[in-house]
Parts: sequence; C-alpha cells; structure tokens
Amino acid sequence: MIITDNLITSFLRTRSDTEEICAPLQIEDYVIQPIVDVSPPKWHLGHTTWFFEEFILSKYVPGFERFHPEYAYVFNSYYESVGKRVIRTDRGNLSRPTVSEVYEYRDYITSHLQTFLEENDDPKIRELVEIGIHHEKQHQELLITDIKFILGNNPLFPKYNDTFSENPGFDDDQISGYSTVEEGVYEIGYEGNKFCYDNELGRHKVFLREYTIANALVTNKEYLEFIEDKGYENSLLWHAEAWDWIHTDNIKAPLYWHKIDEQYHQYTLQGLKTIDYTAPVTHISFYEAFAFAQWKGERLPTEFEWETAQSLFKWGIRWEWTESAYSPYPNYKKAPGALGEYNGKFMVNQKVLRGGSVATPRDHTRPTYRNFFHPHLRWQFTGLRLVKDK
Amino acid sequence: MIITDNLITSFLRTRSDTEEICAPLQIEDYVIQPIVDVSPPKWHLGHTTWFFEEFILSKYVPGFERFHPEYAYVFNSYYESVGKRVIRTDRGNLSRPTVSEVYEYRDYITSHLQTFLEENDDPKIRELVEIGIHHEKQHQELLITDIKFILGNNPLFPKYNDTFSENPGFDDDQISGYSTVEEGVYEIGYEGNKFCYDNELGRHKVFLREYTIANALVTNKEYLEFIEDKGYENSLLWHAEAWDWIHTDNIKAPLYWHKIDEQYHQYTLQGLKTIDYTAPVTHISFYEAFAFAQWKGERLPTEFEWETAQSLFKWGIRWEWTESAYSPYPNYKKAPGALGEYNGKFMVNQKVLRGGSVATPRDHTRPTYRNFFHPHLRWQFTGLRLVKDK
Amino acid sequence: MIITDNLITSFLRTRSDTEEICAPLQIEDYVIQPIVDVSPPKWHLGHTTWFFEEFILSKYVPGFERFHPEYAYVFNSYYESVGKRVIRTDRGNLSRPTVSEVYEYRDYITSHLQTFLEENDDPKIRELVEIGIHHEKQHQELLITDIKFILGNNPLFPKYNDTFSENPGFDDDQISGYSTVEEGVYEIGYEGNKFCYDNELGRHKVFLREYTIANALVTNKEYLEFIEDKGYENSLLWHAEAWDWIHTDNIKAPLYWHKIDEQYHQYTLQGLKTIDYTAPVTHISFYEAFAFAQWKGERLPTEFEWETAQSLFKWGIRWEWTESAYSPYPNYKKAPGALGEYNGKFMVNQKVLRGGSVATPRDHTRPTYRNFFHPHLRWQFTGLRLVKDK
Amino acid sequence: MIITDNLITSFLRTRSDTEEICAPLQIEDYVIQPIVDVSPPKWHLGHTTWFFEEFILSKYVPGFERFHPEYAYVFNSYYESVGKRVIRTDRGNLSRPTVSEVYEYRDYITSHLQTFLEENDDPKIRELVEIGIHHEKQHQELLITDIKFILGNNPLFPKYNDTFSENPGFDDDQISGYSTVEEGVYEIGYEGNKFCYDNELGRHKVFLREYTIANALVTNKEYLEFIEDKGYENSLLWHAEAWDWIHTDNIKAPLYWHKIDEQYHQYTLQGLKTIDYTAPVTHISFYEAFAFAQWKGERLPTEFEWETAQSLFKWGIRWEWTESAYSPYPNYKKAPGALGEYNGKFMVNQKVLRGGSVATPRDHTRPTYRNFFHPHLRWQFTGLRLVKDK
Repeated sequence: MIITDNLITSFLRTRSDTEEICAPLQIEDYVIQPIVDVSPPKWHLGHTTWFFEEFILSKYVPGFERFHPEYAYVFNSYYESVGKRVIRTDRGNLSRPTVSEVYEYRDYITSHLQTFLEENDDPKIRELVEIGIHHEKQHQELLITDIKFILGNNPLFPKYNDTFSENPGFDDDQISGYSTVEEGVYEIGYEGNKFCYDNELGRHKVFLREYTIANALVTNKEYLEFIEDKGYENSLLWHAEAWDWIHTDNIKAPLYWHKIDEQYHQYTLQGLKTIDYTAPVTHISFYEAFAFAQWKGERLPTEFEWETAQSLFKWGIRWEWTESAYSPYPNYKKAPGALGEYNGKFMVNQKVLRGGSVATPRDHTRPTYRNFFHPHLRWQFTGLRLVKDK
Repeated sequence: MIITDNLITSFLRTRSDTEEICAPLQIEDYVIQPIVDVSPPKWHLGHTTWFFEEFILSKYVPGFERFHPEYAYVFNSYYESVGKRVIRTDRGNLSRPTVSEVYEYRDYITSHLQTFLEENDDPKIRELVEIGIHHEKQHQELLITDIKFILGNNPLFPKYNDTFSENPGFDDDQISGYSTVEEGVYEIGYEGNKFCYDNELGRHKVFLREYTIANALVTNKEYLEFIEDKGYENSLLWHAEAWDWIHTDNIKAPLYWHKIDEQYHQYTLQGLKTIDYTAPVTHISFYEAFAFAQWKGERLPTEFEWETAQSLFKWGIRWEWTESAYSPYPNYKKAPGALGEYNGKFMVNQKVLRGGSVATPRDHTRPTYRNFFHPHLRWQFTGLRLVKDK
Repeated sequence: MIITDNLITSFLRTRSDTEEICAPLQIEDYVIQPIVDVSPPKWHLGHTTWFFEEFILSKYVPGFERFHPEYAYVFNSYYESVGKRVIRTDRGNLSRPTVSEVYEYRDYITSHLQTFLEENDDPKIRELVEIGIHHEKQHQELLITDIKFILGNNPLFPKYNDTFSENPGFDDDQISGYSTVEEGVYEIGYEGNKFCYDNELGRHKVFLREYTIANALVTNKEYLEFIEDKGYENSLLWHAEAWDWIHTDNIKAPLYWHKIDEQYHQYTLQGLKTIDYTAPVTHISFYEAFAFAQWKGERLPTEFEWETAQSLFKWGIRWEWTESAYSPYPNYKKAPGALGEYNGKFMVNQKVLRGGSVATPRDHTRPTYRNFFHPHLRWQFTGLRLVKDK
Repeated sequence: MIITDNLITSFLRTRSDTEEICAPLQIEDYVIQPIVDVSPPKWHLGHTTWFFEEFILSKYVPGFERFHPEYAYVFNSYYESVGKRVIRTDRGNLSRPTVSEVYEYRDYITSHLQTFLEENDDPKIRELVEIGIHHEKQHQELLITDIKFILGNNPLFPKYNDTFSENPGFDDDQISGYSTVEEGVYEIGYEGNKFCYDNELGRHKVFLREYTIANALVTNKEYLEFIEDKGYENSLLWHAEAWDWIHTDNIKAPLYWHKIDEQYHQYTLQGLKTIDYTAPVTHISFYEAFAFAQWKGERLPTEFEWETAQSLFKWGIRWEWTESAYSPYPNYKKAPGALGEYNGKFMVNQKVLRGGSVATPRDHTRPTYRNFFHPHLRWQFTGLRLVKDK
C-alpha cells in the first residue's frame, strides 16, 4: 500500500500532466469530435474530473456541493439513465461548458480532493483514488491520440508541437531476429501488490506450444512492400469483414499516410513529413496486421504468447495487436456496481493489444496490461510483431 | 445604381454587422455543427469572406495574393472539384483555422476590397459587391438561427444575450380578422431598379381566385389547441412523408418546446422561458403548418396569394410557409457560371416561405423575396398565416 | 351516370385484364420486391381485391364474410394502425399467402361483388365501384413496370413476352417542329361528367405567357448526344440534390441501359436489345429530364402548359415530366375518411407527369390526368418534351 | 478412407436429403430473403450444387459443359470478382432461375458427378467430394432454420409440417445437477481419420482449472424467470454492445416468442403453440445467454471446457453458446486457394457454439465440431449450458 503523501503527489502530478498535454492546443481544438471514437479534449478533461466527483467526493464528503448540477449529465460516459430532456448530448455538439469553465471545474475538484485526502486515510478511499488516477492516465493516452486525429484530419495539417517523438530510441531498441519460447505451462495475469485492472486477474496457467517471436516490430519499409505487392487487393489475405471494410472505407494504406507527388507522407504530431521507413509501422487496424502476417506466411502472437515472451524483446512504443479476442480470464470477478462496468462490459468483439505506445504515460503499462479495441480501429499508435511456429 | 460611397459604406456596415452578431459568442460556440443544416459560425464568417475573395479580388485585382492557399477549400460551399487529399472536410470537424485567424482573414479581405472599390467604379464590380453584400446578409440571418440551435440544444441552455426579442411589437401588429382579395390577374415578381435575386424574376402575370387571408399569424395559444386536440396523432391531417417524419423523429411539438413539470417552456435567445401564448408560433415545419391548417379546415396561401395580399397585413417577424413549391418563374434566367448555382440548383423538393423574420437583417427582405427550405426543417423562425376560400 | 350492365362489364373486364397481365409470369416472379418502390405482383393482385372487400363488401353487404381475417393486414397500403404482432410485413418478405390463394381471393371477391351489383343500384355503391376500377387500372400499369423491374434486374434478363411493344407507332406519331400557344388565361382541370380523380379538380383559370412546345418527344439518339457530351459530368446542368443522387447511385445513363462491348443495349419487356435510337427515350428521372433540357438551352413545360397545348401533339406512350410540383388545385377538396388519403397525402416533394405510357391501360388516362412521382424515380415509362420561350 | 461405393451412396443420400427438407415448401417459400442472414431455399439448393460443379466437375472433367453460363454468378457466395454488369444480385431479389430450373440443375450435376465418380477413384477428387457433402449438410441445417424464419415471420404463421419435433427426447436426456472436471492439461481438436473441418485442427493441449458444468440445458421455465425478474432491463447484466442491440431492435424475449393475451406463445415448425416450459430455451443470442448467466451468478463454458466435459452430459438438440471467440487453433493451416476461405476468413467477431441441434443432420456434428455466429444472431436453434467455478 502506498503512503498518503505519495498518493496525493501522484494524484496532483496526474492532474497536471493531463493539463500539460493540452497546453499546445487552441481553444477550438478542445471542442470537436470528428468521429465517434474520438472525444473532444474538453470532454476528457471533464470526464476524468467527474470520475473523482462522482465516485469519491459526492459519496464520501458530507455536504459536498457539486460544481454544477448538470455536469454529471454532460461528462458521464456510462449507461445513461432515462434523460429528462429532449436533448441529444453527442459530445461533439456541446460548445458549453467552455474550456475555461472546464478548467475551473478541474481546479475545484482537484482542490477538494486534495483537502479530503489530507484528512482521510481510509484504504477504501485510497483505492478509489488510485483507480481514478489510472483512469485519468488512460485518458491521457486518448487525449494524445484524439488530438492527433483532430489535427491530422484538418486540411491545414497543423502540428501539435515540435518535440513529441513518435519513434523514440527505436534504432537502439529494435534488434533483428527471433526468440524462441519452449513448450510448457506458463502463468498469465497480474501477480503482485501494486495496482492492476480487474481484467488482468485471475492469474492462471496456460499451455503453450513452442514458438518463435520477432525481436523487432514490423517497419514502415516492410509494410510498404506489402502495399506494393498489392496486399490490399488480394482477398485471400483478409477476413471477410475486413474485405468489406477496406472497400467501404476505401482503405489503401495506414491511417495518416498521404501519397503526394508519388511520395508517401505521414502526418505526425510534429506535422506532415515524408515517411521514416526504418520506424515501426503504426496506425494500422487488426485487419491490416493480420493480412500483413498472412502475406508474410507468419502470424500474430496470442496475448498469452506475448506476455510469456515479453522479457525477450523491447516493447512500449506501439500497441501490438494480438490474435486474442478480449475475454474474461478464468475466475474473473467484476467489481460491483457502476465501477464493475469498467472492463467487463466491453468483453466482446474486441481484440487484445499488448505493450504500450509512445502515447502511454510513463509507468502506466506493464507486462500483464490488456488494452483492447475493435479490429477496424486505427487511431491509436498500433503496430505488430510477428510469430512463427516451429 | 447606388453611388460608390454608399456601396463602400454599405459593404463596411454589413461586414461589421456580421461581427456584431457574433460578439456575444464564446470561442467554443464558433466551432461546432450539431446537425448538417446548421453551420459553425466560424464557417459563416469565413465563407462570406471567401465570396468576396473568390469572385472579386482574385479575379479583378492584378497580382492579388490570397490570404491562405487552403481557405478556398475550407470555406467553399459550392460543388467540390475533385479533392486532392484523403481528408473529409465536414464543416463541424475543423478546429482550424482558429476564430482569431478567421477574423484576420475577414480584416484582410475587407480592407483589400475597400481599397479596391475606392479606386474602381466598374459597374460589373459594383454589381458583384452588391451580390456579396446580400449574400452576407443572408448569412447574418443564418448566423442567428444557427447560434440559436447550437445554444438551444445544449443541456445548459445558455442564453445568447438579454436583449434579442423574438416577438418585437407583435401586440400592435397583429390584427384579428381576414382580408379579401378579389379574383383577377395579378403581377408577380420584382419590379424596380434596386437589388433583387434572380429567383424573383421574370415578373409575370398570374390568375387568382377570390380568397380571404388572415391578418394575423397563428399564435402559440392556437397551436397549443392543435396539440391538445391530438393533432400530432391524427394521420388524416398529415402528408404521408410527414407522418413518417413525426414518427421517426418523435415530433410532438414545435422545435425548442420543452414540457417541464406539465408546463410548456421554450428556449429563446434570451434563455429558457415559459411560453408566451400570445406570440406567433415559430420553429414549425411546413408539415406542421399544413397539418395545423387542415385541422382548422383552412389552408396555407400560395406564394402568389401572399405576394398579392401582403400590403393588407403586417409581416416580417416570421417566415411564412406557403403551399408553393420552389420553382423557376416564367422566363427565369440563371446567371452564367458558378454564380448561376446561387438559386436555381435548389429548385426542387423545397417549399417557398415569404415575409421575413426577427432574424432577417433590416432592409434585407421585400414583398417579392422568395425564401425556401425543405418541408421538414424547423430551425428558422418560421410561422404560418391561414387562408380561406370563398 | 353509366348504367349497371356497363359497370359490371367494366368491372369484370378490369379484373380479367389484371390477371391477363400476369399470365406470362412464373410463380417466383410474383413474390419479390427488389426495391421499395416496386411491389410484388402478388401484392398488387391482393391489394386491388382488398380495396373492393374493404370499402364495399365489408361495409354494405349484411353478414359479409371476409375471405381471410388477416388479408386486410397483408394487403393494406394505408396508414397502419398499431400492429398486434411483432412481425414486420415488408411486402417482399411474405411467401404466403401463395399465388394460388391470392387468385382464389380474387375469384371470391369478384364473384361476390358481381352478385351484389346485380342486386343493387345505389349510386353511392356504383361510385365506389368505379373508384375501385380506376384504382385497379392504376395498379395494372404498376404491374407492368414492376414486372419489368423484377425481370430487368435479373442477371439472366428473362423476357416478359414476345409481343409487348414499348414504342408502338411512334414513327407516325412523332412530328418534328414546335407548336406555339399564345398568351392568355386558360382553364385547367377536369370538366365533364365522367370519372376523374379528386386531384384534377377544381377546374380553374391560369394565366400563361406565350410558349412553343415540341411536337415530338426527345429520342434515344438525342439523349445519347447528351451522354456523349458529358452531360452527366457537368454540375452546372443539375440540381444540387440531383448531383448528389447521380454520384451516390452511380448514374450514367437511363435505367435499363447497359453498355456491352462499347454498344448500348436496353432491357425491354421483349428482352435485352440494342437500342433503337429513333424511339423516345424512357426510364429517366425528373433530374435527368431537367438536366437534358438545361443542356439543350430549353426547358420542361409546366403541367398547365402541357394541358393547354396537348391537343397540338400526339401523346400517350411516355409519361412526360413537367416542371410542376404536385400541389392541390384551388378549391381542392379531399374526400372524407380513408379514401381521402388517396391523392392529397402525396402532395409534397413530387413532380407531376402528364400524358400516359405504353403501360397505361387503354382509356385510363385523359388530358387532365395528373400522375406524380418523386424526382429521382425511373422505373415508370417516363420521357420528356421540350419547351422554348419566346 | 471410405470406399467408393460408400462415397457415392453418401453423396446421393445427401443430395436427396436436401430435397426432402424442401418437400413441404410452396414455390413461393423458396424465393424470399427476409433478412440478410437468411438465404432463400432456392439459393441453398443451387449453391450446394454449384460447389460440386465449380470445384470438381468444371476442373476435372475434360470438356465438361456447365449447366448454365450465369449460374456461377448467381449461386456463388464467395468473394465476388469484378461484376461485368450493372446488376445487384441480392439473393432475395432473384425470381429466376425458377425453382424448377434449379431442380433441373441439381439433377444435371448430381448425375454427372455420379458418373464421374463411378469412373474415377483419385483420392484428391474423393476428398473434394467429401468436403462437398459436408458443405451440403451444413446447408441442410441452414435450410431448416431459414425456412423457419421465412414461415415464422409471416403473419399467417404457416406451419412447416406436423412432424418436426424441436425438442426430441429431452425429458430423458436432461439430467439435473452439475459434473466436475478436474484441473489439468487436456487435448483439444480433432484426432482420428474421418472427416473434420480445418478449423478443428491442429490438435493441441490446453490447461484448464477445475470447473463444474450443468448436466442439463437451461429451460424455457428458467429463462422466463429471467424475463420476469426484469433481466432485459438491468444494464449491469449486459455487454455494452448488447445493451445497444436490445434497445435498437426492441428485444424483450427470445426470437419467435409472442405474448398473446398475457400468455407466451412460440412459433415452431409445427406452427404457433403455447410455450413448453420444460423444453430447453432456444433462439437466443450470445448476448442473452451471457446476460442470463450473469443473472444466475454463473457463466458460459469456454469451448475447451465444453469439449473436455462433453462426454459427461447429453448434447445435440441446441447449439450451445460458449464464451470463446472464434480463432484459429495453434498450427492452424488454411487450405490453399478458394477453399481456404471456407473457415479462416470468418475468424473474427464471432463466438463459437458447440454441440449440434435438432436441425443438424444426423452424424454431421461431433465433439470437436466448431460452429460460429455473430453474438447477436438468434435464428439458429441456440441454447445455453451453465458453468460454475470452484
């Protein structure tokens, strides 16, 4: 159990980190929602704040006064109760509260929670705060990917800043070749006494065959070979639903790739650039990762293979698609009440990603961390690592 | 023909009036597009500016330098040429250019056009400027109705300001009873030497039967009787497409009406208020206007009946739905080129509205002015006036 | 007023004519509904029968026993009352009742109505029978166009029969040149004591300018010139909604045209054939008719111009699109009750067509007959005639 | 390897069994496609025939003449090559070929294949025939479920026949209580030398914790308790996508349940009947199976748990939803070419079902058989069996 001072420090740092991420934005950038998967930055700022207000302050602080009676309605992502008004609250349709009001809301809640924590060391509260911190760190990553989508789909291609590197240190980290894991029964899932999500439990045994796994992620150069070999035109490489998707959405390359004057460019958080072919490919869907592996004659790892092998390679700059569907572990127990919706209710029609990305907050991920998205989504910093069978 | 000074004055006043309308807005309000019919205020500001840049400055000022090479792409409402990028430019998905940049764009174009006009009195240029002024006045009205939609569909119901009256002077203007127009051949369409739109020409004769037309607009009180008599549940009052519409969109009252604690309220530009039952009903579709008239056993006027009778009653606070479909007048001539798209390309599937509204700029409308919208739309300040046959 | 024997004869002939139209069909052809505008032939057979059962036999024959308690539900095109079951009854999803059962239903109703009429000469009944006869004749035309759509959208291109001519006698009927109608006040609408629809009344005066109208319909040859001049690619010729439509639906030629080995073919009721370029173009939408006229620098007639000029040219093999929107005539009175829905509820968003087509039953149309369809529809035998202003 | 005579016998029996299933149908029933998941019986008859023509006769019989040049186009379910015509071939829009022509096609191919097999004992051919037989058996099951959907969604509720029992012998087979499987490493996947699908290979080890599994399937009575306890209204029991689904599609009970006069009825192949509460529940989606298990505080088995435990209980009258997503087994190898599309291309977004149903052809299923459907689908004879953890 971490001690109080550290919890408060951690809470305050998380709160300021979130705001730091938004510092380069113009007010206009906070407001829009270009696709349903991308939320307005303003909403992320409010929603992470509402979490502390709803699950801690309003429940445990006697006489606590909410900042605004309607904000629970505006910033709640959970199952809506029956609405009292004839109003659609699509996140991208709300110009109010203003950005400035949302920051006031943040300050109000941050300050009240700090005060409350200074006077209270109930372990149950501390656990809820810790969940809230991790919840906010998840939204820090989404803020970065959502901001990239908002700016990167603007015809003016504005940059986010001049310093965010999408490929930090990959030259050193990426080692060629494959590593082998022997057949056997392995333990999967979180073990330890730090924070983990419910979906990383219960820890359990799996039987794995021998396999070899690539030390390096697939690069832009390799992916370009797939494109130039007409990988997007060969139906035998694709799932049936993927084939429909690439035709309906006219998919011919990773997200953010633009062929300009016969040269591929890529929108990055530093603006539009020619593609760095030695960097690991990113912004691909599970469908594309799978088709690429089929084309290579190899395959994606399962999440169990990935977790078992992860100490053999460097990871953390791309979320790595796995073949595994997102399902509960044996003896998985949902938390009771609304917090129980946190992970369990998404355990269908999604694929597990492992690792972490350049957008993941430092120390937020771990070897047992299970990220998950629908197989067609590409706005996260996704990538892939290949596996071969004996 | 107006003289130069007046044209420049008129141009500058129109430009500043537009900005005045936006003065009460927060930056966030400029950006969003809650439904396809409502454009972000930022877009209106840019689009009306682009009109002067595209059709005058870039064509007639030698060596004119556009403010930004991409703005024509961002602010053009006309038929898109084939796009050069893989980017969707839905107006509500664009956080950039910022509001501040759009105002710089306005200043740049306003100032260049002013200079150009001071040195140039070519009648062709002056005619284009005049079209641009009227074009911008049309967008002034849309700015008001779009701002109302943006704020009025926000669960916080923010007010626009404390002074905008949606029912100015209606107590004095609305006189009960009906006026009669005798059978005969009447002249329709604009006659005079001031500005009018191409759709008001050519002036032509129509034959009208005798009819009587209400001196006053239908009020909220009368409309409430229709609701309480279950008008929305009686299929015989509605067009087939209207019946589908009220069921698909769950329509049970005019737009902006909210039944709160058994009392009808109405969002206005001054905020949410209980309904003023003596005010003329507004924010109804053609379908609702028609169904109301059916229920009354009366009917809507044709646009020709309205134009012929208009001197007999006060009008100008509600756009009045007519039975007439929007079609070209006899001998209608489209302007050549892109400006020819201005009106003619919309002459199908729309209904004509006559009069003007509280959102119409002073002096912008006239007895022959033909406004037009699809029959299901309600976000304009629409209303209705009844007609009886002998 | 027609006398009883003629009414019964007319009724019986109409019933057998309907069945004659279906004689060439396979049972499978009776069942499907490829698009929402096209009904299964089985449904037409049942619906026209239900009309007599619902509005006459069940109301006026004491103790009349319906053929089947559910058929009113299955064959009703009118506003559905609240369904008692969780069943969607899309017309094309119903394999039962079988074709054979529908013919039994027809025989049952035909025979009961014949008996009833032999014993009854109440003018009200006779008027209802007459409406039912005309209603069934309208469905005879729809049967032909719907059968053409069902067969003509099958990759095997089965023919309907070897004798149905889509261009009967047009060589003799089509005379080149234009006829002129002088300016004046003309009478519009049905006058006489035979049957007409409510939408042809009340008869009223209109003022028309002088115009000249083509003696002949536009031919396939002329239409091909429009295609080859890239008419489908010139946005200035099209309404805004039409431009969207041709791009969404990938429209590049009239319906049923297939370019096979660089040669245009056309599916006809006699099967797939190379195009007869001297025949009048058909299966075009209002949007295409309008764009063609724009391209020619001419225009479509209004329905009043058409009606006033119709004695000057031969017509009846193509429904001729007019510029007129479908609206009520002055003093139009809807029939009370469900029959009142017959025409009035469609008077929005549709364009009037005048004349008649090769699929129209003999003697069903007349100079004042007003047909109407949405502007994008093409499965009727539509065509166009041009008008020039002085 | 089976011997030739048996293969021919098996082939001929399969062909006649398929036709036997269709014997009670009216011609009209063969043609329609009420939802995209349900194919017209006519299509099943043709598609299973095309399989033998395409993959065997046209490839291996020198000079083989196809029955009709367009049938490959009409009856192919595989990735469409670029179409040569402007025709949509939705299966439910095709009245031709007629049912009679499809039976002629069947006879032609059956007869040619029989002759070919009598003269040929190439093992490769024999293997393809065997795949074709199993392929046709799969379609036999789909024929039954599709026919049930076609008839069961007709407001006349026609019965299929008087003899098809949906609950054969369940009274004897269903034993109460649970059986326990001990922790350990188990072998999964097909082992043997008879036919199996590629998706049942490669055989591999899995580690399972101890679990107890119900001997009996959940009954209608138990499911009714879930409904009456407002299970469909408790969001905490449902996946997020399931919650959307039940609201969008207004789901309140299993498919084919109708509450008539406060009494639940169920459409069966013998017609509409009151519900037999002792029978196992059927026609539920994975979502409903999962929500029911949540409500019970138990869970669904994984497909590995099911396969390991299957000898402990009776199964085969309901396809049993498992928690497992449909994924390739370790060392899974797709067959090359078009046959390789058979299973692999569906391995995403689907859930595995195990067992078999009353509609499954005798001897078609086996303990390692993996059926799969999207989690919202209900028109198969699906059911569920509960699992408890220690």
